[in-house]
Formats: sequence, C-alpha cells, structure tokens
Amino acid sequence: MANQLEGFNFEQRHGKARVRVARVWRNRSDDNHFMVEWNVSISLLSDCVNSYVRDDNSDIVATDTMKNTVYAKAKECSEQLSAENFAILLASHFTSVYKQVTTAIVKIVEKPWERVHIDGQPHEHGFKLGCEKHTTEVTVQKSGVLKLTSGIEGLSVLKTTKSGFEGFIRDRYTALPETRERILATEVTASWRQHPRESTLLHRAIFGCEKALANTFFGPPKEGVYSPSVQSTLFQMAKAVLNRFPDISSIQLKMPNLHFLPVNISSKENTIVKFDDDVYLPTDEPHGSIEASLSRFWSKM
Amino acid sequence: MANQLEGFNFEQRHGKARVRVARVWRNRSDDNHFMVEWNVSISLLSDCVNSYVRDDNSDIVATDTMKNTVYAKAKECSEQLSAENFAILLASHFTSVYKQVTTAIVKIVEKPWERVHIDGQPHEHGFKLGCEKHTTEVTVQKSGVLKLTSGIEGLSVLKTTKSGFEGFIRDRYTALPETRERILATEVTASWRQHPRESTLLHRAIFGCEKALANTFFGPPKEGVYSPSVQSTLFQMAKAVLNRFPDISSIQLKMPNLHFLPVNISSKENTIVKFDDDVYLPTDEPHGSIEASLSRFWSKM
Amino acid sequence: MANQLEGFNFEQRHGKARVRVARVWRNRSDDNHFMVEWNVSISLLSDCVNSYVRDDNSDIVATDTMKNTVYAKAKECSEQLSAENFAILLASHFTSVYKQVTTAIVKIVEKPWERVHIDGQPHEHGFKLGCEKHTTEVTVQKSGVLKLTSGIEGLSVLKTTKSGFEGFIRDRYTALPETRERILATEVTASWRQHPRESTLLHRAIFGCEKALANTFFGPPKEGVYSPSVQSTLFQMAKAVLNRFPDISSIQLKMPNLHFLPVNISSKENTIVKFDDDVYLPTDEPHGSIEASLSRFWSKM
Amino acid sequence: MANQLEGFNFEQRHGKARVRVARVWRNRSDDNHFMVEWNVSISLLSDCVNSYVRDDNSDIVATDTMKNTVYAKAKECSEQLSAENFAILLASHFTSVYKQVTTAIVKIVEKPWERVHIDGQPHEHGFKLGCEKHTTEVTVQKSGVLKLTSGIEGLSVLKTTKSGFEGFIRDRYTALPETRERILATEVTASWRQHPRESTLLHRAIFGCEKALANTFFGPPKEGVYSPSVQSTLFQMAKAVLNRFPDISSIQLKMPNLHFLPVNISSKENTIVKFDDDVYLPTDEPHGSIEASLSRFWSKM
Repeated sequence: MANQLEGFNFEQRHGKARVRVARVWRNRSDDNHFMVEWNVSISLLSDCVNSYVRDDNSDIVATDTMKNTVYAKAKECSEQLSAENFAILLASHFTSVYKQVTTAIVKIVEKPWERVHIDGQPHEHGFKLGCEKHTTEVTVQKSGVLKLTSGIEGLSVLKTTKSGFEGFIRDRYTALPETRERILATEVTASWRQHPRESTLLHRAIFGCEKALANTFFGPPKEGVYSPSVQSTLFQMAKAVLNRFPDISSIQLKMPNLHFLPVNISSKENTIVKFDDDVYLPTDEPHGSIEASLSRFWSKM
Repeated sequence: MANQLEGFNFEQRHGKARVRVARVWRNRSDDNHFMVEWNVSISLLSDCVNSYVRDDNSDIVATDTMKNTVYAKAKECSEQLSAENFAILLASHFTSVYKQVTTAIVKIVEKPWERVHIDGQPHEHGFKLGCEKHTTEVTVQKSGVLKLTSGIEGLSVLKTTKSGFEGFIRDRYTALPETRERILATEVTASWRQHPRESTLLHRAIFGCEKALANTFFGPPKEGVYSPSVQSTLFQMAKAVLNRFPDISSIQLKMPNLHFLPVNISSKENTIVKFDDDVYLPTDEPHGSIEASLSRFWSKM
Repeated sequence: MANQLEGFNFEQRHGKARVRVARVWRNRSDDNHFMVEWNVSISLLSDCVNSYVRDDNSDIVATDTMKNTVYAKAKECSEQLSAENFAILLASHFTSVYKQVTTAIVKIVEKPWERVHIDGQPHEHGFKLGCEKHTTEVTVQKSGVLKLTSGIEGLSVLKTTKSGFEGFIRDRYTALPETRERILATEVTASWRQHPRESTLLHRAIFGCEKALANTFFGPPKEGVYSPSVQSTLFQMAKAVLNRFPDISSIQLKMPNLHFLPVNISSKENTIVKFDDDVYLPTDEPHGSIEASLSRFWSKM
Repeated sequence: MANQLEGFNFEQRHGKARVRVARVWRNRSDDNHFMVEWNVSISLLSDCVNSYVRDDNSDIVATDTMKNTVYAKAKECSEQLSAENFAILLASHFTSVYKQVTTAIVKIVEKPWERVHIDGQPHEHGFKLGCEKHTTEVTVQKSGVLKLTSGIEGLSVLKTTKSGFEGFIRDRYTALPETRERILATEVTASWRQHPRESTLLHRAIFGCEKALANTFFGPPKEGVYSPSVQSTLFQMAKAVLNRFPDISSIQLKMPNLHFLPVNISSKENTIVKFDDDVYLPTDEPHGSIEASLSRFWSKM
C-alpha cells in the first residue's frame, strides 16, 4: 500500500505470521478421520496510514483479530478442503469485510501428516509425519482478481551417477576440473501458478507435479538420464510440468547444488585417501544456487 | 579420562564432531548403486594430560587425523556395511592403534536416503531423502569390551482420537480438565542396546523396532487402542520391543508430549470459537517431557 | 535474465551462496590486528540459455569459480575495507570480466566480531562475537549503474511500559482488549539505500542508523516515549533516519510484534494467576508482522 | 526413578520443558523497571509407576500443573531474584508438596536482556538483547540435599594470532602441518558448581567467571598469551576460575575448536590464492570437540 506522507513516499503492510491451526474432520458415514496442520501467514495491504502518523488505529484490523479469524474460519469449514481453498476463503474474507483492505495475501505451509498403514490397512485415525511440505500462496484483490500458486518445499533428491559438468568458462580463477561422473544432489523448492480449482483437482496436481519433477530428475529406473548441468536438468523438469499440466501457466524452481566433494587427502609424505568415485564429503555451504521460472507466454508469474 | 593434577581432580576427552562422509558402492554384478551419508562424531578418552599442563602434545591424536581416518576407513570398506559396523571398526581402530587411548566413543547419525521407485521399479542410482534418522553409538574399551546402541530419531506420530488423561493430582495449581478425547502427538527418540551383529541383522532390527513402536502407538487399523497417558503408551511401546526382540537388552524412549490445544476464543461480548473436537492449536513449546528406559535384569543401559 | 525459449518465457539466474571468508589485516605501523568474517552470496544475471537447452556450458561462470574469486579478491584487498566496498568490488568484477553477465548481485552478512577490552584496554588481536549483524546488498549492472543497500538484522529491543494499542476495529472476530500498558518487543531488520561512499563513512552510517533507530524506539532515558502502535513507532524510527542522514534516500523496516502475553490462569474452582503487569508469557509464534518503507520522492527502494 | 516391573528394570522421569516466563518488577522507590525472561524446564523423579502399567494417574503431577506453578511462583516473587534462586524455589516446591516426588531437577536458560543506555544514561524501562546466555541447573532431593550449577553458553571468542599446535602424533593418517601461527576460535559453554548464595553474590560470580575465562583466553591487551593447544588454554581457563573463586568447587568447560582454515587454491595451471596469514575459510563442521572438568578434591561435579 503506497502513499505520499509528510513529503515522503510510504509503503506498508501488516499481518499475522505463523498462525498454527490443526483441523480434524470426523466422518459420519465411516470411522475415518481426516486432519490437516497448517501454518498460516496473513498480510494485508490496507489504507491505514493514520495509525502510522496520527496515533489513530481506527482503520487497523488487529493482528490478533486476524489470528482469531483463522480459527473461526477453520471451524466453519465443515467439509475437508485444500490449503489453497482455505487460503482463498481467508483472503476473500479480509478484502470483502474490511472496506480499507485492498489486497490480502495468505500463505500456508501444510505439515505433511500422512495416514499410516498397519499391516497394509489404512489406519482410521493414525498419522505419521512425512517429508516434503506442500505450500500455497494466494493474493486476492478487492476487485476479486485472484492469483494462486501452489508448491512443494523440502524435496531432497540425489543420484550417484549420470551427472557431469564440462565445457564451462576457464579463466585465472577456475580450479574446478571438468567431469562426466559426479553425485548430483539438490533440495527442490517448486511453486507453480494455476487457476483455482476444486480441492481434489488441486491435490492431484500437487502429486502430479512432484512426480513429474522427480521422474525427470532421475530418468528411467534402468540407466537413468545424463545431466550435463543443474541448469539443463532444471529446465527439463520445468518443461515436463508445463507440458503435462495445461492448467499450470508457469513454474518456478529453486535447485541449490548441494555438493558432494570428491575426497582426496594427502600429507607431504603419502596419499591418505585417493578418490575413486567412492568417498565423498557432503556439504551444505557453500552451495550453488540455480533458480529459474518458465511460463507460457500468456501468463506472468 | 580422570587424573589428579596440581591438586585438582581432572577429567577430559577430545575428539572430532560432525564429520560428514558419503560412501557409494557400485556393484560389479548388477548396475545398482548403494549409498550412505553419515555424520560421525568421535570422542577419545586418552592419557594426554601433558597437553593440558605442559605444552606437550606428544600424546595427542590430532582431531584432524581423526577426521582423515573416517575417510580412509570409509574407503577401505569395499563392501556395504551398517553404521553400527562402521562405528565399531572406527572405535576399535583408535583403541588398538594408539597406546594412550583407553576408550573410544563413536556416534553416527545416518541421513535417511531411500532408493526411489519410478513406475514401481527401483531406480538403479536414484535416492530421495526420507524422514526418521537412524542413529548408533558405540563405546569400545582397550580391553575389547564393547557397548552398542542403535536408535531412531525424528519419528513423528499423531492420532486424532483414542487418547485421554484423567485422574491425575488436582491441587491449587491444577487447571487442566480431565478428558477422554484429545489428540496425542509426539516425536519419538528411541535407542536400544543390543549385541553386535552382522549388518543385515542390525538393519532388520531397526525396521522391526520402528514397526513395533509404531504399531503399539497406533493400535489396530480399525478402532486403534485407547491411551490413558503418554506414560502408559510409552511403557507398552518399550515392552513390545523387548518382548519381540530377545537380543535387545534394554530400550530408552523419549516421547515429548506435543500438545494440540483445544481452541476456544471469546470476547466479552460473544463466543468466537467454541471447541468441538475439531479445531486445535498445535504447539512446540512448552511440551511435556516423558522419558523412560526398560531393561532386562541382566543388562544396564 | 529473461528469454523466449521453445515457446515459453524463461527467466533464470545462478550463483554461489554461503561463501564464508575471514580476512585478517596485520598493521605494520602498530600491533593491532583487524579482522572481518563475511558470508557472501553471489547471483549473476547472464546470457547463458544454451546451458539450459543445449547441453552447452560455454557461457557459464562455474559457481566454484565464483567462490574462488571471493577468496582471491579478499586477498587482493591489502587495506581494510567495508562489506559494502567488497561487495561492489566483487560485483563489478563479474560484470566487467564476463561479457555475457549483465547484472551481478552480491549480498554479504558480516558476523559481529568486536574487539575485546581487557581492563579497559583494547586487545591487539582478541575478538568477541556481538549480536546484531551488519548486512549489505549490491546490484551492479554492466552499464555501471549501481544500487547499494546497507542494513542490520537481529536488533532485538524491548520496553516494559509506555506502549499501548487502542481504538482498532472491533468486530465479531475481535477478542483483544484495548490497553495503554503492555510490553513492546521486536527484532528489527532494517535496510537503507545510500550512495556509495568510502569505507569509514559507510560504517559511521551503520552505527548512526542503529543509534537513531534505538533512540527513537526507546525515547529519553527518563520517562521514555509512549508508543500507540508498532506502526506508529516504526514510522517515527524510519523518519528519524531519513531526517538525520541526508545521503540515505530510503529505508525499509521489518518489525515483527513479538508478543508478551499477560498471564491469567484459572481453574473452575479458583484463580491460579491473575495478571497485574508482572508475569508474561513471551512467544515467538504467532507474531504480528509489520513492515514498511519510507523514501524521499526522488528515490525508489 | 528406578523400579522393578513385570520382570524388567524400569527408570522414568517426566516434566515440562520450554516453559517461557517473563517477570517485570516495577520499583516503588524509583522509576526503574527490572525484568528477566526465563526458559524453564522441570523434570521430576517420582513414584508413579501405576500410570505406566495400570492406567492409574493418581500419582501424576500433570505437566500442565508444573507449567502453571512456574507462573504462580514467578508472581509470588515480589522481589527480583536470580535464576538460581528461582530454580531452587521451584524445585523445593515440588519435592516438599508432593509426597511421591523424590527429586526435582529445574533448568533455566536466561535470555540476556540488558538495560540500554541512551546518551550514557541507563534507560528506565528499555532493554536490548545481548549475546551470552546465563544458565542454571538445580537438583533438589526430598531430604533437602541440593546441587546447584551455574553457567554461561554462547560465549564466542577468537584471537587472530598467538595460537599454534605442534608436536602431536604423526602417523599414516596425519596430514595437518604443525604451526605456531593460526586463528583460535571457540564457543565456550561453561558450568560450575557452587553453594547456594543470595542473588547478588551469584550474579557477581557469573560476571566474575566470564571475565576470568575471557581474560585467560585472550591474555594481556598488549601481546596476549601464546596458546600451544585448545587443551592447554582450556586448562588455564578452568584453573583461573577455581583459583579466583574459592566457593566454586568444580567447573566444566566445552570448547569446540571452530576452525579457520588457511585458504590455498590452485588449478593445474596456476596458483589462485596462496595463504599468507591473511585469508581464512571459517567452518562450523567438522569441529574439534575438547571438553574437560576440573574440581577440588572434596567435590564431584
């Protein structure tokens, strides 16, 4: 929200972050429970400069009220719904109820609680925490214009071969040898833009995207696929998603290159460890940072 | 290592922590790769007080040397082995090679890289990060006496019903209502003592223990099992492991109670949210901390 | 870097993150050592789409080369310099040496090592870690156009009184009582834009800004100053910086409201704790999120 | 708490961890406010096996009750007191009020809020977060026997010279060169045992200990003092505390060696960076781990 104020240009937003809510749905028709755990962050663009310059809070939606609204709306949802639909519902509430709120941005990170199976049977009310988190971010304007992204974070993948890096620029600061044999590892953060859909379609898209991303990263179970660079693999992954899901208009991928360094150790006198594609030093820092977005022409992330 | 020194009682140890190593095994007979990523910590009890009081490092195994040894030994392991066996191999090296080292303690946390499946087929060289970590701690004395524990950490489990807490002490500081209906959630840390075994047996035990722990926590897929307290559930879980695995002599469980608080919100004027076993506030802090160990009489953790 | 590619719109960047470097300067003229520890992240916008679509890395500056450049340039700096000047030097290197690099973005977080004093005397070579981190981000375009921001993060401040929040919107989701007496606590993240200067001027600005921010937050040592909202205090802080430092053209502040909740605990039978401006529950989540930027008209953050 | 149970040996404890409380004291006589923020963890050894084996919680102090007790007792403390004294007060409450509680262990980590100074004047109610945390752990038995430790954590210190490491064991796994010139850096965790005292004495001891530790680490402001090993420096630091504070009966120090590696980078063709005591790579992992305790004969940590 931008204003001119006392001779300055002023932009501001306020909201509530890290509102944690769990919702359990108990089915009448069967004994299965469904549950979600969401971490919700709300940010409002609103016309409330008086609170900044005049000690007048009359245009302020208290962040405590935003928090209460999360719980009240979660209660109202008597049917299971997706994080995307809950985010839309919340954001629309703020833009429609409060006249001074022009835009509401709601982000949700869903904790990956997965139904457990005991002896091959799904458990009625037992859940276990999984790995990759599902994320969504919704922006709703007062006019009703809606922008929706879904995504995953924490998808850590690694392949022990079929990766190389050759032919890059060599200059006086270059020490890295060229190679056609290295470990490739990354923690994928992906988000994609799509049009609002009903719950099940959205969820199908999430699993579909994750599968398309992973399958492209790894290649076929026999032989795999050669990666000439993180850049190339990232591009193939982004393209696979857009080619497969016509409703997705753009995708952004962040794929830090988490290096597994060849271990070679020598003293003056002797060689202690000589690398032979066997022993690696895994590192978190420093890491390569490769990120890109691919979009159909008619869209813009 | 305890000594008397300048009129004081002195105890010390030194080592190298957070040594990260990945080992890849490429099979001659088939095209499957195997890999592990370990985070190794070494601690030596050794007779080296001169380094503390006399600027004489002649009895000191440099921690850099310990680190190199991890990589050199990993390279020597031409066949895949368990974290337990690698820890024993490393610890035994330090007590046998260095005369002043009386005890070596090696801890390993294994990153849960799991082979991916593409269209139902196991991938030859593709891995994805899982959730629960496998841990081991080995203590080897110069005499050859060996103490071995294995464990898991990060096993987060939750059930949406069949949990209560009643009949506890009520006094002037008690506000918690009694209940027969609540969410029960915890992040299990388990470690158990067993006798050294060859690799596959150890791994089978880990998956067996995790399964016994989870099955006891959740109960049957239909109906589940009622938990009258974290204490009771913990005890049943520990007993299930000892009853099922005769080679395990003791088990320690830490099961913090990660509370999902019923959401009730009211203002002076009206009720905003009234709890009906539907909307919860998940919290990390504060948390109940319940821990216990169960051992056969002939053992001691 | 945006391109049209195989019918898609494509944007990408790559770089190296979390490159850690420490630089020590030993003075010839006196015995004082100077040192810095920097965490450097580099991101390049460059014309290298062939690496994405054609397995051709000939336009790629390897991220390993970027890392080496950090160390080589740190070595070349024979005189102590600010993080800002090092970031400019690095970024300019990438845009001037590599023809395909159109823009370089360098971020540095400086670890707050501070010279220790022993018995009131500054120590020649002893340093202790402080609290708030100094940050900088520099964007250099091939044309030479330069954008420079400096900032601090981790400045945690609290006042036990002279804070309130009244007159905000009350509706069916509002439970928060109005108050003129509460604890106000936040962890300030600030960044401001200014024109490149020589090292000492920049550093003076950082301490000056931090002082202006803190003094405005706290008010005079006797009596302090009343804060009617985080919004109002944030605005006063931003204005104080712009008013005092004519070279700073804009400032951005993020001031999460870290709540200290009044403790009231009751059972059905009796009151256990009744709040009297004495006992608080400090929380990290959820938290209010208030952020804003203030700029002179002729600038744009 | 150990028992024999169904043919097993059973040990258990339960408690509440991460209870956060802030206490503000407003002085009648002047306008200065005093405040502390504590993170309290309570653990009870108590005779409550029925809750584990018989679904009978009648001997259980609910962890929620423990949490309430923290707040109720904080309220009762109308005069400012030390974390040590609060821990003693809490632990004694649990052993004296509940017949089945044989031992109570209370740990407190105090957040380092420090009074701010504006223009050299102490602020009446303004506080800023400092660096090193003050810790305490108290064990109280029903008999009244009391064990008290105080400590600090997060004291990060570094010196750019006057440190070396020579004469250590060289064998086939040794690559580390000997040196008389390196950076020495560590994050000190210290805890010491002393007899309960009134508040101010305890606090004086904490600052005194920190000062003794730091002064010994750094040596005089001119010239410093040579460290032949972390081991030697640690021993001097421990001895300095015991020599200076007769009431302290033992001290434990953990001083991980946080390595600043000399940067040398070469390609096949040329030297990119050649180390000359100027450019270092700071690392967190792996790190040396050196720990020791020093005690007077008549005590035992």
